[in-house]
Amino acid sequence: MSLNTFGHLFRTTTWGESHGLAIGCTVDGCPPGLALTEADIQPWLDRRKPGQNKYTTQRQEADEVRILSGTYQGLTTGTPIQLMIDNTDQRSKDYGDIAQSFRPGHADITYHQKYGLRDPRGGGRSSARETASRVAAGGIARTVLATLVPALKITGYMVQMGPHAIDRSRFDPAEIERNPFWTPDPQAATDWARYLGELRKSHNSVGAIIEITATGVPPGLGAPLYAKLDSDLAAAMMSINAVKGVEIGEGMAAAALTGVDNADEIRMGQNGPDYLTNHAGGILGGISTGQPVICRFAVKPTSSILTPRQTITADGQDTDLITKGRHDPCVGIRAVPVGEAMMALVLLDHWLLDRGQTGGARGQIGPATL
Amino acid sequence: MSLNTFGHLFRTTTWGESHGLAIGCTVDGCPPGLALTEADIQPWLDRRKPGQNKYTTQRQEADEVRILSGTYQGLTTGTPIQLMIDNTDQRSKDYGDIAQSFRPGHADITYHQKYGLRDPRGGGRSSARETASRVAAGGIARTVLATLVPALKITGYMVQMGPHAIDRSRFDPAEIERNPFWTPDPQAATDWARYLGELRKSHNSVGAIIEITATGVPPGLGAPLYAKLDSDLAAAMMSINAVKGVEIGEGMAAAALTGVDNADEIRMGQNGPDYLTNHAGGILGGISTGQPVICRFAVKPTSSILTPRQTITADGQDTDLITKGRHDPCVGIRAVPVGEAMMALVLLDHWLLDRGQTGGARGQIGPATL
Amino acid sequence: MSLNTFGHLFRTTTWGESHGLAIGCTVDGCPPGLALTEADIQPWLDRRKPGQNKYTTQRQEADEVRILSGTYQGLTTGTPIQLMIDNTDQRSKDYGDIAQSFRPGHADITYHQKYGLRDPRGGGRSSARETASRVAAGGIARTVLATLVPALKITGYMVQMGPHAIDRSRFDPAEIERNPFWTPDPQAATDWARYLGELRKSHNSVGAIIEITATGVPPGLGAPLYAKLDSDLAAAMMSINAVKGVEIGEGMAAAALTGVDNADEIRMGQNGPDYLTNHAGGILGGISTGQPVICRFAVKPTSSILTPRQTITADGQDTDLITKGRHDPCVGIRAVPVGEAMMALVLLDHWLLDRGQTGGARGQIGPATL
Amino acid sequence: MSLNTFGHLFRTTTWGESHGLAIGCTVDGCPPGLALTEADIQPWLDRRKPGQNKYTTQRQEADEVRILSGTYQGLTTGTPIQLMIDNTDQRSKDYGDIAQSFRPGHADITYHQKYGLRDPRGGGRSSARETASRVAAGGIARTVLATLVPALKITGYMVQMGPHAIDRSRFDPAEIERNPFWTPDPQAATDWARYLGELRKSHNSVGAIIEITATGVPPGLGAPLYAKLDSDLAAAMMSINAVKGVEIGEGMAAAALTGVDNADEIRMGQNGPDYLTNHAGGILGGISTGQPVICRFAVKPTSSILTPRQTITADGQDTDLITKGRHDPCVGIRAVPVGEAMMALVLLDHWLLDRGQTGGARGQIGPATL
Repeated sequence: MSLNTFGHLFRTTTWGESHGLAIGCTVDGCPPGLALTEADIQPWLDRRKPGQNKYTTQRQEADEVRILSGTYQGLTTGTPIQLMIDNTDQRSKDYGDIAQSFRPGHADITYHQKYGLRDPRGGGRSSARETASRVAAGGIARTVLATLVPALKITGYMVQMGPHAIDRSRFDPAEIERNPFWTPDPQAATDWARYLGELRKSHNSVGAIIEITATGVPPGLGAPLYAKLDSDLAAAMMSINAVKGVEIGEGMAAAALTGVDNADEIRMGQNGPDYLTNHAGGILGGISTGQPVICRFAVKPTSSILTPRQTITADGQDTDLITKGRHDPCVGIRAVPVGEAMMALVLLDHWLLDRGQTGGARGQIGPATL
Repeated sequence: MSLNTFGHLFRTTTWGESHGLAIGCTVDGCPPGLALTEADIQPWLDRRKPGQNKYTTQRQEADEVRILSGTYQGLTTGTPIQLMIDNTDQRSKDYGDIAQSFRPGHADITYHQKYGLRDPRGGGRSSARETASRVAAGGIARTVLATLVPALKITGYMVQMGPHAIDRSRFDPAEIERNPFWTPDPQAATDWARYLGELRKSHNSVGAIIEITATGVPPGLGAPLYAKLDSDLAAAMMSINAVKGVEIGEGMAAAALTGVDNADEIRMGQNGPDYLTNHAGGILGGISTGQPVICRFAVKPTSSILTPRQTITADGQDTDLITKGRHDPCVGIRAVPVGEAMMALVLLDHWLLDRGQTGGARGQIGPATL
Repeated sequence: MSLNTFGHLFRTTTWGESHGLAIGCTVDGCPPGLALTEADIQPWLDRRKPGQNKYTTQRQEADEVRILSGTYQGLTTGTPIQLMIDNTDQRSKDYGDIAQSFRPGHADITYHQKYGLRDPRGGGRSSARETASRVAAGGIARTVLATLVPALKITGYMVQMGPHAIDRSRFDPAEIERNPFWTPDPQAATDWARYLGELRKSHNSVGAIIEITATGVPPGLGAPLYAKLDSDLAAAMMSINAVKGVEIGEGMAAAALTGVDNADEIRMGQNGPDYLTNHAGGILGGISTGQPVICRFAVKPTSSILTPRQTITADGQDTDLITKGRHDPCVGIRAVPVGEAMMALVLLDHWLLDRGQTGGARGQIGPATL
Repeated sequence: MSLNTFGHLFRTTTWGESHGLAIGCTVDGCPPGLALTEADIQPWLDRRKPGQNKYTTQRQEADEVRILSGTYQGLTTGTPIQLMIDNTDQRSKDYGDIAQSFRPGHADITYHQKYGLRDPRGGGRSSARETASRVAAGGIARTVLATLVPALKITGYMVQMGPHAIDRSRFDPAEIERNPFWTPDPQAATDWARYLGELRKSHNSVGAIIEITATGVPPGLGAPLYAKLDSDLAAAMMSINAVKGVEIGEGMAAAALTGVDNADEIRMGQNGPDYLTNHAGGILGGISTGQPVICRFAVKPTSSILTPRQTITADGQDTDLITKGRHDPCVGIRAVPVGEAMMALVLLDHWLLDRGQTGGARGQIGPATL
């Protein structure tokens, strides 16, 4: 059962609103005895932090995380780890206009309908601010994975902004950290900068597609049938604000493939199976193959824009609404570290689940000397 | 929570292998006092049944469902409902070849790696046969919904086979039940018949995209943030065999939209909000808006084909594998009723969850006389 | 979690009514590759089977269990194991009288109030017959434990019938299997036989206290704070029909002890801590100490008796009710194997949980050479 | 799944150590639109607060709760409510002695064995300090219940201290709030004061039995079979520190009763069933009857005492340990408000669960005009 909790064995429960006193999360089920301080988590938060360049919201948040429980003398104790991040830059007046109106394309109206009230300050619980908690929890997951599965590496990057996809022939991993869009295509970085600048000037916003890749994932993570690795990844990514689609490997394009083309053929390699392709995105039957796990998700454009849009008020009046404030013209940019965090949470959770059920034993392929 | 259980309050636990004695599921948390017999469930199973036309596997299964518990004198008692479907057409000899080899693109290898063994007969637990249990459970969910939310209607249909998408201008709901592909586009039905016939002759298979629409969904179903309606739908659809992508509303195409275009503008209608568009697919902030809920998923092509593909054996030898047997050339066809069933399970579960937390009260929009 | 499912990682979902076609359960999360056939489960069911002597109900049930899924060639596959037991001796006419009346002290009235209807045949879902599913699931758990934790041994026995407690100075483990009450006190066995015979003749029934002991439990099983080993044991035992109290170690008597007396003092032994006493019942802070885990529970007397009792009918009339049929004069007798099964389910579940989170590493006590 | 989370729909996740910066909990699934401020919670915490009289630890904690999320303008929003209580009186030096030794009868050793390390300051996570979070969460549950089930009333009191039980013929509800032991027997209050004073002087501690009664519980709360109301109550109470036994109604004494005596006979009353007795403690078949729900639990004596006890150190040396510090001579006293809180959490959770599944409809007893 869930609501605001995510995970089976490594479980994250998040809380907090955009303009409340603080946000945070409880991370339960963490393996004990691992080194963990705020310094292991903060760098991931810093990547997501708003206001770092002109392409993200200018809200200024230090996003300093504090560990309130679950560690002793710098080691995890196996008990719940509470993470807290103070909200320091709340300008509630920015949001006064929307307290009575519903931004089209935003959760304003559904929260109102379901709960009868909502916290209008910055979107309240539905704000992308909640994703800071995910990134913080993901920082713990990454720290644990670095010890338990040291070969595992998670990398997120943007592969499309608006209608403009990257050219995969220019894919350069080193480029990802060099541009504000976390894109591996240097030409796209240049083009998108111009494109996004114009969009913002025209009081508009735009969507994006993010790809998260995990290499070094051992085979055997996942579980039939409703806790499949891809099923949990889909839930994880779709639970991020503004995400409208999730793909594994070929994703929606798998529909257009034939069985002959889609088969990831296998040859026996030195250390086990060698796959000739990876249409499957590293997951077959809900269980990891050992190939890179590849997941993509689409982020819709921010609904909070300066262009007037038709909507209604809580008392049933038609109105045209402009959303002032400090909003991301492409909220997909900051979704990159969020997607990485969700990937880390899912993979660690399934690694622990697998250790619980199977002890980590793996079926033999090839001679026993392998 | 999960493994082989799905749902929060209305929970389905499935069991069974393709060529075991039977398959089935336990449906727990069903509201009491509702009329339910096998006759309410069987029609949905009949829609999914294999061997009904030349485009699906020729395995002959009666797929007769029996209710073993949870009803009394034709009424649900509120206690767990056990559904069982005997496996009557097991031809294990068809699968002898693959006991030692791993079909490329199939779960054979990952089950072997995770568990150290697998039931090779018909794919065992990873077989699409398991989806019969989902359809049966979905039949119960639909029966319950028919009483609790009578306006709700779920319709599934195929919108793309291989590279061939339907033309939405030809969308005719009445057409869906008239062709073997459950497509609303009569021209596509004709074209696909020819296309799929040729594919089968060439010992190949192909993927597809299925769309599931639910109309009459009340606003307010869903819950922030990890049990969002779209998050649970994504998990549900991705848990179906061979699914590689899930979309809500615009889905992956949302990335290409601007905020101006993506905003579903609202005007005040006679009975509440009137939305001018439905890019959101009926869900904002994880909660239903009252518009149609629209979900799409891509099914990859069957990996069991008669064309030889390179692979390896359990003892590490390279080999070329042909998968004989009676396989679906486009398994996406039978995924239509499965997707409908998962939609029914998710919507009923969230309807019950919402009734639990809020009592079904809804926030007022407009004057109280509405 | 919940409703009709029990366990975290090793999860049992039960279904079925007393006089339906069958009862059974799905066991999910079982480690793969372990030998398991019906022959591993049937002996435990045979111990619980009714009609074996004159002190239990004369209902004749073969209680033959069938494994419908989850094994292949006699080995567990890691996928859900479905167990089914046919109901062969249904005499619904025995229960005609109570369809409209509520047996005092029985679930008849609460099922009616909650669900608006109930299956009156043999108590329906509330019948002790459901415990056969628990015993079957427990048989799987024991089989798994025999491989993973071979030193672990679970023994259940009756320590009190009605007001007559055993004399612990006469405790003889070998005696347990020699008498129909599974009591370790041979004198009690004789006395209780006479006592129970008289009770039955006087159309009465009586309660009992069962003790379940597990030796060879490794230290470290359990988890703070809501999944404590003792908390899960309490839930497990209290979920058995007719149980009204659960104790760990000293149990309710712990209230009367002082801190000086209750401290289980420790000396360093050859192989780790040696405890001088075991007031704690093998659990401290929700985690096993390595001492025997000791759990007791009280079973109330069967409410189905031949002595008339005042009650009401569904249409609100006062009446006096005699419950005919074949009821256990002391249902606590058959609760012995049920309690053993629940202990096995809880211990295996926590063993797997612990392996998931900690990998089974244990904190060092004493020099590293230990 | 649980670990540090409790509840199905109304879910509490607690975190924090005795001498960390703070403790707290996240309450998820709260119904929206209900008035809730710190003032609704603080009085319950004040009842549990240490240092209020000479019979509880002299640790001085303000125990001021802060609501960090989940409310807006004094109303619950339906999103997770974060409660935080700062730890203000940490004297870690008091606990220096036990960092390397294991208090006999305490979780020191099992935490060390399971996790390889522990936070020795004040018992860390295993401290009774965690129960403040439960009381705070229970304060929310009570506030919600006051609106949804206004007739429901929860009362806790001590019925035994050490070997000294109350005389039920002197039971006076008004007395409960008048003495430091929350006992309804004024004579017991006097006797216990003397008894406990002497125990403390002799550097000892003692156990207790607490009874929690809930009146005004509607019939129909609970669910077969593993989420029975009594099963969840047993888990709830057993999850409290130092609890070793839980009873419903007659509890362990039910074993000594005959079926004739134990039957709670029923007559038809003006407003439904009138029960002549309440041996069942208000629960039959796991579902509430509408009678008072009665639950008792035994709290063992504090293991932290000034009398030396034999134990060992982490490096395997025998030693004699005196536990200095400010410990409760009868920790059962402060368990009274904790037990009340757990009762509130369980009842509200089941009320919401029942509303989800059945909509709160109740089976008719008697003529429809009732």
